Amino acid sequence: MAVGTKRPKKSASRKAAARAPARAVSANGRARRATHKWVYLFEEGNAGMRDLLGGKGAGVAEMTRAGLPVPPGFTITTEACNAFYKRTERFPDGMWEQVRTSLRDIERKTGKGFGDARNPLLVSVRSGAKFSMPGMMDTVLNLGLNPKTLEGLAALTGDRRFTLDAYRRFIQLFSKIVLGIDGALFEEALDRTKKAKGAKSDADLKPSALAELIAEFRGIVKQHASGEFPEDPMEQLRAAIGAVFASWNNKRAIDYRNYNRIPHDLGTAVNVQAMVFGNMGDDSATGVAFTRDPSTGEKRLYGEYLTNAQGEDVVAGIRTPKPIADMAKELPAAYRQFEQIARRLERHYRDVQDMEFTIERARLWMLQTRSGKRTAEAAVKIAADMVRERLITKQEAVLRVEPAQVDQLLHRRIDPKADVKVLATGLAASPGAAYGVAVFDADRAEERAHGGEPVILVRIETNPDDVHGMIAAQGVLTSRGGRTSHAAVVARGMGKPCVAGAESVHVDLVKRQFTAGGVTIKEGEPFTIDGSTGRVIAGQVPMLEAEISAEVEQVLRWADQMRRLEVWANGDYPHDATRARGFGAQGIGLCRTEHMFMEQERLPIVQRMILASDETARRRELKRLLPFQRDDFYGILKAMRGLPVIIRLIDPPLHEFLPSLEELLVEVTRAQALNKPESEWREQATLLAAVRDLHEQNPMLGLRGCRLGLLFPEIIEMQTRAIIEAACRLKKERVPVHPEIMVPLVGTKEELRRTRERIDSTAQTVFDETRTTVRYKVGTMIELPRAALTAGQIAESAEFFSFGTNDLTQTTFGVSRDDAEGKFLLRYVEDKVLPRNPFETLDRDGVGRLMRIAVEEGRRTRPDLSVGICGEHGGDPESIALCEELNLDYVSCSPYRVPAARLAAAHARLARVERDR
Amino acid sequence: MAVGTKRPKKSASRKAAARAPARAVSANGRARRATHKWVYLFEEGNAGMRDLLGGKGAGVAEMTRAGLPVPPGFTITTEACNAFYKRTERFPDGMWEQVRTSLRDIERKTGKGFGDARNPLLVSVRSGAKFSMPGMMDTVLNLGLNPKTLEGLAALTGDRRFTLDAYRRFIQLFSKIVLGIDGALFEEALDRTKKAKGAKSDADLKPSALAELIAEFRGIVKQHASGEFPEDPMEQLRAAIGAVFASWNNKRAIDYRNYNRIPHDLGTAVNVQAMVFGNMGDDSATGVAFTRDPSTGEKRLYGEYLTNAQGEDVVAGIRTPKPIADMAKELPAAYRQFEQIARRLERHYRDVQDMEFTIERARLWMLQTRSGKRTAEAAVKIAADMVRERLITKQEAVLRVEPAQVDQLLHRRIDPKADVKVLATGLAASPGAAYGVAVFDADRAEERAHGGEPVILVRIETNPDDVHGMIAAQGVLTSRGGRTSHAAVVARGMGKPCVAGAESVHVDLVKRQFTAGGVTIKEGEPFTIDGSTGRVIAGQVPMLEAEISAEVEQVLRWADQMRRLEVWANGDYPHDATRARGFGAQGIGLCRTEHMFMEQERLPIVQRMILASDETARRRELKRLLPFQRDDFYGILKAMRGLPVIIRLIDPPLHEFLPSLEELLVEVTRAQALNKPESEWREQATLLAAVRDLHEQNPMLGLRGCRLGLLFPEIIEMQTRAIIEAACRLKKERVPVHPEIMVPLVGTKEELRRTRERIDSTAQTVFDETRTTVRYKVGTMIELPRAALTAGQIAESAEFFSFGTNDLTQTTFGVSRDDAEGKFLLRYVEDKVLPRNPFETLDRDGVGRLMRIAVEEGRRTRPDLSVGICGEHGGDPESIALCEELNLDYVSCSPYRVPAARLAAAHARLARVERDR
Repeated sequence: MAVGTKRPKKSASRKAAARAPARAVSANGRARRATHKWVYLFEEGNAGMRDLLGGKGAGVAEMTRAGLPVPPGFTITTEACNAFYKRTERFPDGMWEQVRTSLRDIERKTGKGFGDARNPLLVSVRSGAKFSMPGMMDTVLNLGLNPKTLEGLAALTGDRRFTLDAYRRFIQLFSKIVLGIDGALFEEALDRTKKAKGAKSDADLKPSALAELIAEFRGIVKQHASGEFPEDPMEQLRAAIGAVFASWNNKRAIDYRNYNRIPHDLGTAVNVQAMVFGNMGDDSATGVAFTRDPSTGEKRLYGEYLTNAQGEDVVAGIRTPKPIADMAKELPAAYRQFEQIARRLERHYRDVQDMEFTIERARLWMLQTRSGKRTAEAAVKIAADMVRERLITKQEAVLRVEPAQVDQLLHRRIDPKADVKVLATGLAASPGAAYGVAVFDADRAEERAHGGEPVILVRIETNPDDVHGMIAAQGVLTSRGGRTSHAAVVARGMGKPCVAGAESVHVDLVKRQFTAGGVTIKEGEPFTIDGSTGRVIAGQVPMLEAEISAEVEQVLRWADQMRRLEVWANGDYPHDATRARGFGAQGIGLCRTEHMFMEQERLPIVQRMILASDETARRRELKRLLPFQRDDFYGILKAMRGLPVIIRLIDPPLHEFLPSLEELLVEVTRAQALNKPESEWREQATLLAAVRDLHEQNPMLGLRGCRLGLLFPEIIEMQTRAIIEAACRLKKERVPVHPEIMVPLVGTKEELRRTRERIDSTAQTVFDETRTTVRYKVGTMIELPRAALTAGQIAESAEFFSFGTNDLTQTTFGVSRDDAEGKFLLRYVEDKVLPRNPFETLDRDGVGRLMRIAVEEGRRTRPDLSVGICGEHGGDPESIALCEELNLDYVSCSPYRVPAARLAAAHARLARVERDR
Repeated sequence: MAVGTKRPKKSASRKAAARAPARAVSANGRARRATHKWVYLFEEGNAGMRDLLGGKGAGVAEMTRAGLPVPPGFTITTEACNAFYKRTERFPDGMWEQVRTSLRDIERKTGKGFGDARNPLLVSVRSGAKFSMPGMMDTVLNLGLNPKTLEGLAALTGDRRFTLDAYRRFIQLFSKIVLGIDGALFEEALDRTKKAKGAKSDADLKPSALAELIAEFRGIVKQHASGEFPEDPMEQLRAAIGAVFASWNNKRAIDYRNYNRIPHDLGTAVNVQAMVFGNMGDDSATGVAFTRDPSTGEKRLYGEYLTNAQGEDVVAGIRTPKPIADMAKELPAAYRQFEQIARRLERHYRDVQDMEFTIERARLWMLQTRSGKRTAEAAVKIAADMVRERLITKQEAVLRVEPAQVDQLLHRRIDPKADVKVLATGLAASPGAAYGVAVFDADRAEERAHGGEPVILVRIETNPDDVHGMIAAQGVLTSRGGRTSHAAVVARGMGKPCVAGAESVHVDLVKRQFTAGGVTIKEGEPFTIDGSTGRVIAGQVPMLEAEISAEVEQVLRWADQMRRLEVWANGDYPHDATRARGFGAQGIGLCRTEHMFMEQERLPIVQRMILASDETARRRELKRLLPFQRDDFYGILKAMRGLPVIIRLIDPPLHEFLPSLEELLVEVTRAQALNKPESEWREQATLLAAVRDLHEQNPMLGLRGCRLGLLFPEIIEMQTRAIIEAACRLKKERVPVHPEIMVPLVGTKEELRRTRERIDSTAQTVFDETRTTVRYKVGTMIELPRAALTAGQIAESAEFFSFGTNDLTQTTFGVSRDDAEGKFLLRYVEDKVLPRNPFETLDRDGVGRLMRIAVEEGRRTRPDLSVGICGEHGGDPESIALCEELNLDYVSCSPYRVPAARLAAAHARLARVERDR
């Protein structure tokens, strides 16, 4: 049943749920239906039955089968839930009978009776879908209590207060969830009673007060529900199960599924389980624990517990829980048993477990176990340790570490040993630590940053107008907004640290200061943020630069053995190349030559070259540039010795090397308005005319890339000469070299054919002059839709393709990233017009399809065509998975992303092998 | 044999040619080869054998078979030519024997002997490839003359001067073509002799002088060739045939084939034919004629002739030829025969014939006949007449008229009856006539045009800097450059009249004037150009507006019956719609709503709307715009009554409605520099800030199209309301309406789904308010690669697709038309990096492939999806052919192009049916 995003009216659905059980046992039941198995005892299930039993049901089933002490119970299947919806919210035939039978099984195992006044069985009724949807659906505890069983339980436990409190909680929860009565009515009554009795907390309420409260609760039910509060436990159970089914389609749950892209037709299972109580005295307790430290990965039990308490007390934070180690002294037998079970669970699941347990009168009950969430460091250490312990294979170890976690370890971090003063904690929105002076608007941030000061931009929220300030800042702090807020998304896109939604930070934009943790930081005063943890920290603190630990190295080396894709790096300078090699890059996938043009002593030459009136003058300036470029290429080729280095010929439109039109216009206009002598502004006016001449409406689609080279072949000649001369020199020095020359922005085969002719003839000239030859390749960026669509033709002249997915995404979508990201693209992502930012993760349907065409048709023309990607997507795990599927040869990303990319490439390969199996 | 663009060295090839015959008859000849048929007598061939016999050979064969008086001869096949190249330039075995046999057949038919001193047979040796390559390959006339046969011919004709002159010409031609001696040597000798003898023309040379000249020619040959001039006619023939074969691969011919995309491996046939002479006295003549008047199409013999002359005399223009009608009196018998033959030929070929004939001593010989080239008017009239005459079918008539010819008839023309003073004639570079004052630079052209004056831009050549001037001008005149010069290409693109390369126009840019035909036109003085004929005309002359004659109407109606594609028109205003309907448009394919925003009284409202600080203010201004838009839509829907009208929602980026950034910047800077009070420039400064805010680096890829509507849905609501209210009002007035609402720049299915939701709900509101409903469609432009690639998804929300091929071409190529056309695109076309301008003719491999994907996958989702094209390509015949192939439903173009598009659609359909047969 596809529910879609339809939202059933809440009241109607509730009524249906309440009505459901009665109809389910009507005489209409057909025999065929009755034979279907709707209910599984815990011992009948296992971990592989998540589809049918839900995650929680499969989990307790697995624990039960493993012989662990799990309170007995059963699971009503997701099929039953779907049948319930198909029958317009009536139980499927036979289900209720199976529930009754299974309930008798629990009674047998616990020796208690459901509704038995002397030895009453209480149960919990919990939802449990295939995918965890924490807090989204409903749970009823202590079901089975009524005035009679209450007395029995009180007698049995000897604790009347506890029993009354349990009953009070049951009525409250059941009324809200099953009967659909506004929970606030009960909360108000509780508050009134506490106030009247002078009770500080719920626990201070005496039995008599609780009894009065219960009477009041009953009154509320009588007034707001159609009848009395149901006292028959079987009736309670029927209604609770119907309510849990119905909660699958409450608004919260539907929104959650839409957001997390969980299908709406899975349905939820319902788990009915005997209650155990950690609040039955000092030999009772409740707690949570990890089998290993989830922060560091250290191999020791890690967790906390509370004696004489219920699970919710741990969460509520009224009493401070004790470290789990203390339990060894306080409840030694239970601790030993728990330790054993923890070891066994870890071995069973072959992963760190996050466990919930309750000790009821010295008896240990395991309530839940699941894979434990862990930090990046812990993930890596645990994975490496478990391989050493022969618990998991190297493949599993590699799969246990997320590329993002490796990425995180490669960001600047605050020294864990440092003594820091935390002023506030917000969301860890974009990893890494940053230090700078506080600045409260984007323009000033830009100004001060350009002045050489490190700044942190502090805003209540950011919006597109702030982007230039974010670019200039070391990091960003906002007091409002979540992980998908503008600040968070943009900062992650930029790879800048960001703490978002730090609500305890009070930003005063008028006074230009913020206050947090009692400290006021004014504009220009320094502080630190930690985007990996969300901390806002006073002053400057010692930081650790990114580094790769031995364990990370180990996992990455394993990943290297498993991946098929090579990982290359983008880098323009020798130091980039050196760093990339250090991170394991197997080549340079993109060396942008124009960055070299921008350097101080070169720019004037470049400008003279651009303004040259004829080819002769242009060649003269190019000759001056040649030695600079040759040295650059010499350095980078030397740093990569023997590994391939792809050097891209000049790409940007020429006006990028000249002053801005607006600036010049202002200067000239002002000088003219003030009647200054022409000699003072003639030069600027000339420059303005030249810039005007080069001005384009849409420079991204203008005179750039190979188009420049076809108009001014002398530029291509100079660059080729610089590359080949550098390579020849290294060859003479016996350094192996593999230069590859990449032609940008090719859209037609003829563009590449002609450019290549020029490159080859220039190379031949250098070979003749130097009496050396080196092997080099010529290839092209595939960054225009037409290049992809005609790749079969283009491959005639190309020995390699490199997908320039930034530009390819821009042209395929018709979206200029610079313009769009602030103006509408992030909003598109926020509003889910787009599932994600296509500049971060490759768009499979559009850009990915073009890539597939290009790879297939390019290789059809030239089977040994080397194909890679050098856009920013090259470092994104999901995009890397697509590159694996498309049979690319390598991905190339920024040096810092290389380690994560190595891991992601292994993941992609393993997933594909698994899928193809 | 694929010759490619390889250029054999001329001298080597000549030597090989000269050597060839000797080897061909060597003892190596194999019997198997000898049986192959290399030579066809004229009567053995027919018109269908163009591949084997070439165009000329097939033509004379057809005439011969039809029993016409054709001088006897034979054709050596193109296969022989290819075999010649395969054998490294030796004749294939058996060919020469067949030539000899066929020659004997000519001797028999003419009663003359090849090399017979008393009654010598002379022959011509002419090339003739499958496709006509006029002037590209070689021809030798009068072959067979030598000192002996010369005497015989002189005796026979009694005209020694004629005979000597023929011999002189033969030596000159043969030496140059077959022996490869520089032709200038002979020309110089001829000039010297003429000077020495005081002869004004060749004809003034006496026999004695000619004899001396012949001796001198022989001397030249002796000096520059390896031996004496060959006197044996058989040797002459062998060498001439080899030379004609070799001429297939001379540089000129290769260039021509490259340019016209004729394959290099076709080879040429060689035609050997008995010579006839029109210069054997007053009962001899030579002439050319058409079976109908090629200017008007009138049915009468049209042509000219000269008595006692050879063909080249007609061309040389020494004597003025007489109109063909005069021949009825001067050579009545021959004229009657010729008239009869002309009628027969026209019936035989079922088309107007362009014939060459010679009368040798009262005997008529037909030398050539071919389809006659004709003007647009003639083409249409002839096609219509021939259907009436039952000579051709309606289909043939439709195919005989080119869409470009219909287009030409739809341009403003100079009244043919007007008495005009032609100052000069240049190339007819872009059709239509224009009148205006001369202006010599683009800036002034713009100024004066904006001042309301019609101007014609006059330049030596134009370049990209002149484009704004061309836009402003009525037409363009250049004194340099060809049909593919910048001026020509850009003017055609703009649909403006242009005369290019008028070399007799002397442009003086300093004095700002031009001189032509003795008249000087200064800047600001009026004149006229006729881009259809290339004429530059003094002053203003009466013009005829475009019109469709009855014959054009007739042919178009026939075309309408044959085409499958509907033809719609693009138009923004009711008068566009009316005109389009008049031209036969079957719908409005694109009504751009933003043009309406630009109108004077509306623009201020639009600007206030854009600058509004919040939605409320925006809605207030939109409410003011609503009545304007509603009236616009009312008008256009009414004009098209019942035909579909596609209205596109707002598309351009908002800053297009505001003043330019540069303008504002200059104003504000100037005011500030001059310390003007802030009150004087505050408004401009505010506007500047707003424009800055909206400013985009690449507006084409920015916030526009449906992106605007998703951010400001109130704009979509207003526009939808205007459309639906107008439609409802018309419905109440009983006018049938078919509004279709088009969403621009869609790239993802979600964009369209959401926009459509808004449109549908707004329409429903209007229906509720007006208590009327009208049927309307919602569809989208396909103008981004991603839209095409995900068309299957997008079609879920679209009832129609309209290819916006301008933007689709821009994004597929990554080329901004405005920026690129001047800067590199035209140069690309000129340099053949691109075969043609992709903004004029759809790019099949890139854009066409995307279109195919979109059509196929869109229709897979929605089989009744209506698909059309509304880019400028919609009026281009070649693009229309692609649209037919892609099974589009309609093409939409500017109203004036509708008639030509109707014809082109019929051509496309007929060609496809033919191909599929």
